[in-house]
Amino acid sequence: MRLLFLGDIVGRPGRTAVVERLPRLRERWSLDLVVINGENAAGGFGITEAICDEVLAAGADVITLGNHSFDQREALVFIERQPRLLRPANYPRGTPGRGATVVEARNGARVLVMNVMGRLFMDPLDDPFTVVAQELEACPLGAACDAVVIDMHAEATSEKQGLAAFVDGRASLVVGTHTHVPTADGRVLPGGTGYLSDAGMCGDYDSILGMQKDEPIRRFLEKTPGSRLEAASGEGTLAGIAVETDDATGLAHRVAHVRIGPHLAPSGPDFWE
Amino acid sequence: MRLLFLGDIVGRPGRTAVVERLPRLRERWSLDLVVINGENAAGGFGITEAICDEVLAAGADVITLGNHSFDQREALVFIERQPRLLRPANYPRGTPGRGATVVEARNGARVLVMNVMGRLFMDPLDDPFTVVAQELEACPLGAACDAVVIDMHAEATSEKQGLAAFVDGRASLVVGTHTHVPTADGRVLPGGTGYLSDAGMCGDYDSILGMQKDEPIRRFLEKTPGSRLEAASGEGTLAGIAVETDDATGLAHRVAHVRIGPHLAPSGPDFWE
Amino acid sequence: MRLLFLGDIVGRPGRTAVVERLPRLRERWSLDLVVINGENAAGGFGITEAICDEVLAAGADVITLGNHSFDQREALVFIERQPRLLRPANYPRGTPGRGATVVEARNGARVLVMNVMGRLFMDPLDDPFTVVAQELEACPLGAACDAVVIDMHAEATSEKQGLAAFVDGRASLVVGTHTHVPTADGRVLPGGTGYLSDAGMCGDYDSILGMQKDEPIRRFLEKTPGSRLEAASGEGTLAGIAVETDDATGLAHRVAHVRIGPHLAPSGPDFWE
Amino acid sequence: MRLLFLGDIVGRPGRTAVVERLPRLRERWSLDLVVINGENAAGGFGITEAICDEVLAAGADVITLGNHSFDQREALVFIERQPRLLRPANYPRGTPGRGATVVEARNGARVLVMNVMGRLFMDPLDDPFTVVAQELEACPLGAACDAVVIDMHAEATSEKQGLAAFVDGRASLVVGTHTHVPTADGRVLPGGTGYLSDAGMCGDYDSILGMQKDEPIRRFLEKTPGSRLEAASGEGTLAGIAVETDDATGLAHRVAHVRIGPHLAPSGPDFWE
Ligand SMILES: [Fe+2]
Ligand SMILES: [Fe+2]
Ligand SMILES: [Fe+2]
Ligand SMILES: [Fe+2]
Ligand SMILES: [Fe+2]
Ligand SMILES: [Fe+2]
Ligand SMILES: [Fe+2]
Ligand SMILES: [Fe+2]
Repeated sequence: MRLLFLGDIVGRPGRTAVVERLPRLRERWSLDLVVINGENAAGGFGITEAICDEVLAAGADVITLGNHSFDQREALVFIERQPRLLRPANYPRGTPGRGATVVEARNGARVLVMNVMGRLFMDPLDDPFTVVAQELEACPLGAACDAVVIDMHAEATSEKQGLAAFVDGRASLVVGTHTHVPTADGRVLPGGTGYLSDAGMCGDYDSILGMQKDEPIRRFLEKTPGSRLEAASGEGTLAGIAVETDDATGLAHRVAHVRIGPHLAPSGPDFWE
Repeated sequence: MRLLFLGDIVGRPGRTAVVERLPRLRERWSLDLVVINGENAAGGFGITEAICDEVLAAGADVITLGNHSFDQREALVFIERQPRLLRPANYPRGTPGRGATVVEARNGARVLVMNVMGRLFMDPLDDPFTVVAQELEACPLGAACDAVVIDMHAEATSEKQGLAAFVDGRASLVVGTHTHVPTADGRVLPGGTGYLSDAGMCGDYDSILGMQKDEPIRRFLEKTPGSRLEAASGEGTLAGIAVETDDATGLAHRVAHVRIGPHLAPSGPDFWE
Repeated sequence: MRLLFLGDIVGRPGRTAVVERLPRLRERWSLDLVVINGENAAGGFGITEAICDEVLAAGADVITLGNHSFDQREALVFIERQPRLLRPANYPRGTPGRGATVVEARNGARVLVMNVMGRLFMDPLDDPFTVVAQELEACPLGAACDAVVIDMHAEATSEKQGLAAFVDGRASLVVGTHTHVPTADGRVLPGGTGYLSDAGMCGDYDSILGMQKDEPIRRFLEKTPGSRLEAASGEGTLAGIAVETDDATGLAHRVAHVRIGPHLAPSGPDFWE
Repeated sequence: MRLLFLGDIVGRPGRTAVVERLPRLRERWSLDLVVINGENAAGGFGITEAICDEVLAAGADVITLGNHSFDQREALVFIERQPRLLRPANYPRGTPGRGATVVEARNGARVLVMNVMGRLFMDPLDDPFTVVAQELEACPLGAACDAVVIDMHAEATSEKQGLAAFVDGRASLVVGTHTHVPTADGRVLPGGTGYLSDAGMCGDYDSILGMQKDEPIRRFLEKTPGSRLEAASGEGTLAGIAVETDDATGLAHRVAHVRIGPHLAPSGPDFWE
């Protein structure tokens, strides 16, 4: 099976890059499933229903979130009627929406997609390792589903690597999000799980985390209130990871960094070209 | 000028990779200056004088450090007699050693090398932005020196990108260290400063941050005391960035990710081959 | 019913103060139940079985812990055979020991005692509010037990006040521990729950948190490794709160700060004298 | 000399308590100097010029601030023309206002008042210990001034006790603010410095940190956006510390907890009555 995961969409540059490029990529690479993190899609903060629909229409099968899940309050409502939008599974019981779902890929395969949030340098939440273990037990790879994709929205590389090692052999892909910088460590772990510490963002990289540079720099220098953070407006770059799984086991055969756009060294799944 | 920066050496696998590969790389790429972060060189924690000498002998011109600077206490002493070993410049006044130095590169050029530490999700320290600005004023690129290399040892990508944007045009290279995962965003910023959010580590990537996996995973699951963290022992990979600077301005012409070893997608400065 | 809660025992001064004074206080005030936090009893770090036995023999009915629960590793073992020693209830499933227990007070009443840990500025743990709610549902005050004592081991006053307001009317006492400084806000909340933001410590207050002053001061000034923290050795002071509950409802009638020893303004339950 | 320090004014209940009670207290206790922390005076967030003037008119000689200094942006402007309003001295160079001042007390004595902010669990700032040492060197107690009052706005008790021990004998009073809960450890340290870990707040204690309880509790339970925090509206209580200094040395003779109002055990300087 052919999977594509793209990192946090940040503002209009990220949305435009996804909407303009994803349809062709789906076709060209014969993608079976596309998952995109959308927590910053609305001007850098959260996601609206209109944007969610736009990204799904562009070819995403599932959209994941993170600490910015509900920055746009309407997400508290429409997430209940949008089964393809996931917020972190280790949010408190009672949080609107869900943190995991099983969707049918284009090839008919059942894929468990999960979104969890790390705890190091993040908000206090319940243990993501335990939540992931429970979901995997309820829907084991190779038995109840054909692929498992886990978006680990976290700051610390130790926690991302830790979760990946913890589920190695039980998931098709563990991919980090949140830092908005793609890492270069994409690989298949010894147990067969595809891994990338961070997918990076889909957005304008001539920025600080996808936002215009002046105000963030000012905040590092001064401790006074300033202006709002605004999304940068230059051309967006797509960043993420492509994974080919073994149809028999659901584990990863091979992975490739995906970077398409003006600011990053280009990369893609040559094995699908 | 040709510069090479390599990320945190972690334990024996990192040291071996550096010692075995660096001499040939220096020659093959005609490197003028090599800087390596060595904060985890001694079993994952700090650096000893013997290891420091070994890494310098292998071809490093300057070794930088970070939050693990003094994990080996002998570093408090020998750093005073080793001008090529830098600890973060924003450590408190009175800390042994220094945070910046000007060294002569192989081509005779004077290079200002600086080590600073971020503050987000790190120990409380004085402002790294201010310290960097002071050093740059004291030794401006193109006037008092021919190149400026800044190792920004930090957790948060926002702070690394912020510092880089802050000095863009005033330094040859800003490179992050500390996360032990190489990022894929190496590029020349609009003002001419080479940039990479994190150099990654020189160490065994079949690990968690270069350490054996069992104990770190256990610590995420359990809140009980366990065993020590031990450096992983598999083959090490080199990770960092190669920079070619303009001899007239000292700014970066072009950069290339450097990844040499078993676990990461290989990369290097093709323009020097 | 008459309850006494004393804050974190720190080292020998704290133990001596408890052992020398508690037996007489139990008698003089006709105490029905005594709970003491013992997380720093062993030289400032954790608790040994010998010390646990000593404190119980001196008149404690239950000993609670906190982030230092297992600093002495033997606690991982003997906590299993010591039902009167509690570690935080929101530690991960599978942690040795228990976080809540029902004990019989001297007057025959059944008292639910609970230890939970906050999450603000502390280690990542599961939600203490949810854990407390579950325990209270399983053993409601006035129905399944005659009193409820909750030791909220936490840093932030907001989280302590939040938990207290959350259970106001469902517990006899919510008392904070961990900061090693007694607060002066002991009172009965509107719903009938006795409250004190922090019990303070039982230890030598001519110190920093019960430890000798030199090394902690040095650590604020310097970022280099130093010597170990050693418990201070001057005379200890007892600190905590006395609570009188209504036998019918189990709620608090009245409370009094308890401070007995050389460094703090003396205070006690005059209503029992 | 007779000094009074009162903790963070929170909203209208705090302002009313100060305005209604302070004038009589000044007279009754023949106060020479009054310092009040006002960082939450404007509805819980910052301070306006009108409120600043009101509090000064009620009898404060100096108003200190903290992490909420500039929540009301007008403070960025009027602090420049209001020498009796202090923001933390370890804010970055260039921050509007000042962090220390020498004022004349009613008895003609010169008093150095300082505001610094801790770094543990707080925003990254420059080292408060160093800043305090510099101020004390520039204006030594007993030489250049007759009393020194330091408001250490900090979360961690270790850092407050650390600073106090660091300046013991060089200041008349070190008093903590920020936690909004008064501690009960007021005393004269061995070197002669008066000390209290936290002054508490001037505000409505039937609250969470002075704010209405519902929203803060909700935020501990849920990770979704909610409503704004609103200051509680019940009767306010004054909290702080009274200090009598030796006219010859400027060190503290004796101190007394001050708590006047509906929710806290009453306390005051009996030695002045
Ligand atoms: Fe994001
Ligand atoms: Fe995020
Ligand atoms: Fe490192
Ligand atoms: Fe580091
Ligand atoms: Fe403690
Ligand atoms: Fe503790
Ligand atoms: Fe405050
Ligand atoms: Fe504050």
